[in-house]
Amino acid sequence: MGFLHEGHQSLIRKAATDNDRVVVSIFVNPTQFAAGEDLTTYPRDLAQDQFKCLEAGADLIFAPSVSEMYPSGFNTYVTTFGISELLEGKSRPTHFRGVTTVVTKLFNLVQPNKAYFGQKDAQQVAVLQQMVRDLNQNIDLVVCPIIRETDGLAKSSRNTYLSTEARQQAVVLSQALALAETLISNGELKTSNIITALKTHIQTQSLTKIDYIKIVDPATLQDINIITTDILLLLAVYVDQTRLIDNTLIHLEA
Amino acid sequence: MGFLHEGHQSLIRKAATDNDRVVVSIFVNPTQFAAGEDLTTYPRDLAQDQFKCLEAGADLIFAPSVSEMYPSGFNTYVTTFGISELLEGKSRPTHFRGVTTVVTKLFNLVQPNKAYFGQKDAQQVAVLQQMVRDLNQNIDLVVCPIIRETDGLAKSSRNTYLSTEARQQAVVLSQALALAETLISNGELKTSNIITALKTHIQTQSLTKIDYIKIVDPATLQDINIITTDILLLLAVYVDQTRLIDNTLIHLEA
Repeated sequence: MGFLHEGHQSLIRKAATDNDRVVVSIFVNPTQFAAGEDLTTYPRDLAQDQFKCLEAGADLIFAPSVSEMYPSGFNTYVTTFGISELLEGKSRPTHFRGVTTVVTKLFNLVQPNKAYFGQKDAQQVAVLQQMVRDLNQNIDLVVCPIIRETDGLAKSSRNTYLSTEARQQAVVLSQALALAETLISNGELKTSNIITALKTHIQTQSLTKIDYIKIVDPATLQDINIITTDILLLLAVYVDQTRLIDNTLIHLEA
Repeated sequence: MGFLHEGHQSLIRKAATDNDRVVVSIFVNPTQFAAGEDLTTYPRDLAQDQFKCLEAGADLIFAPSVSEMYPSGFNTYVTTFGISELLEGKSRPTHFRGVTTVVTKLFNLVQPNKAYFGQKDAQQVAVLQQMVRDLNQNIDLVVCPIIRETDGLAKSSRNTYLSTEARQQAVVLSQALALAETLISNGELKTSNIITALKTHIQTQSLTKIDYIKIVDPATLQDINIITTDILLLLAVYVDQTRLIDNTLIHLEA
């Protein structure tokens, strides 16, 4: 999607370490935006992206136009049902259909052996893993860890939307993840109690509006009530007008 | 879909002539059948199919089980909208979604350079051509002519469903195509007149029930009113309980 930051660069660096050649796709994909979302205002800076790709070790940038990817009469979509309809899919019902469609097209055009995605978009990772499995796509997905600002905020191209005050309050997302880790390591295994504590913490920040706080099975994204194994904790929170997401995988100590 | 006949063998022979290696997929694909259709009774004979594949020059048969192709939790579909909703799609609304999904899976599993399909399933050809284009699938589709019985009936695995009387009456489909060619070469360019004449001819056979008679643009499958260029004539007719399809491309003489 371009407007690259250290998170994207970490994927490129990992890919350059693991492989002979690295292709970076840069494409703000219209089919994963709904009407009223931020397609037109989504930040773009191809010149800066080119510099960051080179710096991180990319060999080729694939930056097609919208009309190359979606010529007149385009009408085929890849849809992973079920998992696409949860969490982000509730607020954005056609979002993952756009992602699975464009990623399939990019896989077919570039024909990579491996594809690198960030854990930042945890549901995207789970959806794409199911798509690759279901459609027998001949590719290895490599999932790379979330890269954060020094105060803990997950790097995101949408962070540029934040005012100074909103940027300060946005740290509450990563703080909430840390709070959950502390609660769980102190023996709190009832997810409703954890979620209530996180909600209370996030609501101390005046500009926040919680979309969801979920504790789920990492593969199926189904809700968990009592923690007995590894879980994925996901947050989606509006800070002022900007919707931010963050997540962490928590390994339950035996 | 197996239960191979001379039509399938003509595809294998053409593929063997054009290529170093030929893989034949044999799979009665459940996702292209709706509830109440003939999935369970669809004819199967793998031993006979193996013989016919060898005879025609196949190097490998890929005959997966349903649970290999659709393991528990499978939930990803490829859909080509628009063109899939016309003609066959009206009677069979989920049919082409099943076809595009399984063909994408087979392409990813077998990774062929070329794929051979019969003109018999004219709409399937048009849908798959659009799917390949839309998803940038790296494959050449090769379309092969309809193979017919000596009396003109298009070869089909479903012909085995026909009683002796129904088999005799089924020749009316290919007769109707020939009648249309005669009418057009005699200067009849108004499609409603042609369709009325075909309807009258088909209805002379007591066991027939017409599903559709359509004269369309070969690429978009949109209806044509006055013939000015090449057209595709498509028929779907029940003969007794068996639904048969047939079609012909008609080139308008200048």
